[in-house]
Amino acid sequence: MKTDFQDLKPPPRVLLGPGPSNVHPRVLRAMATPLVGHLDPEFLVIMDETKELLRYVFQTENDLVLPVSGTGSAGMEASLCNIIEPGDQVVVVVKGVFGERMCDVAGRCGARVKRIEVEWGRIVEPEQVKAALKDGGVKVVALVHAETSTGVLQPLEEISHTVHEHGAFLLVDAVTSLGGHPVKVDEWGVDICYSGSQKCLSCPPGLAPITFNGRAAEAVHNRKSKVQSWYLDMTMVEKYWGQERAYHHTAPITMNYALREALLLIFEEGLEARFERHRLNHQALLAGLQAMGLEPFAQAGHRLWTLNAVRVPEGVEDAKVRRRLLDEFSIEIGGGLGPLKGQIWRIGLMGYSSSKQNVLLFLGALE
Amino acid sequence: MKTDFQDLKPPPRVLLGPGPSNVHPRVLRAMATPLVGHLDPEFLVIMDETKELLRYVFQTENDLVLPVSGTGSAGMEASLCNIIEPGDQVVVVVKGVFGERMCDVAGRCGARVKRIEVEWGRIVEPEQVKAALKDGGVKVVALVHAETSTGVLQPLEEISHTVHEHGAFLLVDAVTSLGGHPVKVDEWGVDICYSGSQKCLSCPPGLAPITFNGRAAEAVHNRKSKVQSWYLDMTMVEKYWGQERAYHHTAPITMNYALREALLLIFEEGLEARFERHRLNHQALLAGLQAMGLEPFAQAGHRLWTLNAVRVPEGVEDAKVRRRLLDEFSIEIGGGLGPLKGQIWRIGLMGYSSSKQNVLLFLGALE
Repeated sequence: MKTDFQDLKPPPRVLLGPGPSNVHPRVLRAMATPLVGHLDPEFLVIMDETKELLRYVFQTENDLVLPVSGTGSAGMEASLCNIIEPGDQVVVVVKGVFGERMCDVAGRCGARVKRIEVEWGRIVEPEQVKAALKDGGVKVVALVHAETSTGVLQPLEEISHTVHEHGAFLLVDAVTSLGGHPVKVDEWGVDICYSGSQKCLSCPPGLAPITFNGRAAEAVHNRKSKVQSWYLDMTMVEKYWGQERAYHHTAPITMNYALREALLLIFEEGLEARFERHRLNHQALLAGLQAMGLEPFAQAGHRLWTLNAVRVPEGVEDAKVRRRLLDEFSIEIGGGLGPLKGQIWRIGLMGYSSSKQNVLLFLGALE
Repeated sequence: MKTDFQDLKPPPRVLLGPGPSNVHPRVLRAMATPLVGHLDPEFLVIMDETKELLRYVFQTENDLVLPVSGTGSAGMEASLCNIIEPGDQVVVVVKGVFGERMCDVAGRCGARVKRIEVEWGRIVEPEQVKAALKDGGVKVVALVHAETSTGVLQPLEEISHTVHEHGAFLLVDAVTSLGGHPVKVDEWGVDICYSGSQKCLSCPPGLAPITFNGRAAEAVHNRKSKVQSWYLDMTMVEKYWGQERAYHHTAPITMNYALREALLLIFEEGLEARFERHRLNHQALLAGLQAMGLEPFAQAGHRLWTLNAVRVPEGVEDAKVRRRLLDEFSIEIGGGLGPLKGQIWRIGLMGYSSSKQNVLLFLGALE
């Protein structure tokens, strides 16, 4: 076997891709903190503080809020596999890779999946959701708030109204919005919402904040069948994160140190100031890109501040440009996923990565 | 909401419980390393090195070896949900909490579970496994190598022979043995094996090393149904960790930095020297405990070096002693789980925590 292992020295990157984003030094420092046990009284305080801070970013009073011990995709699976029982009808809006992924996950949970197909790069209209619900019998409507594969921000309020008129649950993927765009879980009536730690929260990847409101939690508690995933079974996980402190699985201690610190940075900055920062840097970047003749991919009026998708200009080699940005400037951006491969670039300005300096640096480097 | 959040300053603990163990400063330092993207060419090198080092500790040449992006329990679920298809018959040896957990997980995967019940604190005998297999039709035999709830080390070679004579797969939980006791995946013919990062590997919790041999991987590739967990579906995860580098989910970058560093420390120490250290410290601790009149819980000849279970003496209050150890000496040990609650103490000497100093400190503090 290989025996000449070198010191760990990954190059310092400017992370302007679809995530992970750069991590604030205070969060990195938190990760170097020595461990305590997962049932240590001092860790229980950290857990409680983390829940409190998660409520702040989710803008919710929900009891059930915690970080799932996995990445954003584990959050997606936890959301779906807890609420879905075999045979349930689930409507999934597919307007990018992550809606597609939701269909796959929901199908594996035994759902009868009804897809609403939307052109990639556009939002779904409330009428389309209404039409999908008109025959009744739908338990869950699942959709992505900030579609990382297209750069589209989906309005949720009107859809939430429609979903609830039909007695269904609204399940929202906020992986690329939480901490960068408002995600008003309570005000918008989102029943189940999940995110990932490594995007606008600017924490390393490895945790997936999740929340269920009372009605959704009740549905999970009243299931007829066991949740198919033991690891993600919220009826057990919530007892570790709740007052019972019942051992379920060993929490990733260090990742939780990091998440708490990242959330604390958000709390100190303030949500409104943070959103405004993301909005302004997005505008500056987009203006610069448009001045170079680059065309935004996402529907006007519904563009993410946190992930800027632009079309690769005719005659330009996608991979070559990204490789040069990486090699010459140590800047990472994302290419297109799935059918958009080679068609778009995805430039993330998330959390700590969303700064005036990075906007200028990137525009200069691309030029 | 609460607004007076303090600096993160958990107390320095001597972690002598059932995990997490203390983490070497080099591993903590690795965790403070700035992030690169999960498809960064430099990260791909780190992934390859991690796989190489995992093969070293698993003592295997298996192609399919990688860290699952979750804790040890996610490793258990990944092992079971990939190999089991609905209706499969699975024999599970239950001789502690983690065998019990395997039954629960396997049942959720749709397995018909046949339990071999063994008195807690004892090993399973090859004849018992043989008897459970005699009617044929069993696809998997699952058991725990190092039962964290009882302190028992299960011999595997003869059982492996029996399992393979009957055409079944041997699936082994090595959460509390990998890196502390020999886990000879190839020599013993273990088909599927998983562990956790936070025990004898002395890395923070959050990753679950796993390996499938060729025969087991082929069975997974030839499944008739999709793996029920999208997040843990090895047919997709292996494509990210293999040459395809196909995006599946965002790997926990920082946790992988840490795991690589922890594995590198094992490689530098050498497996044999590491096992010998665990053995000697176990002997010293046990001698000291017995000198105080404490009685080992696990069957003689099959005691773990990594987790020492002793009976709580008559008239002694379990929780009070553990609380005093924590408050006065900042030492964490474990209590009993399930039916053993209040009956035993579990003193871990795992990885970096397995040192002469800790043995002396603990014996002195307990005295």
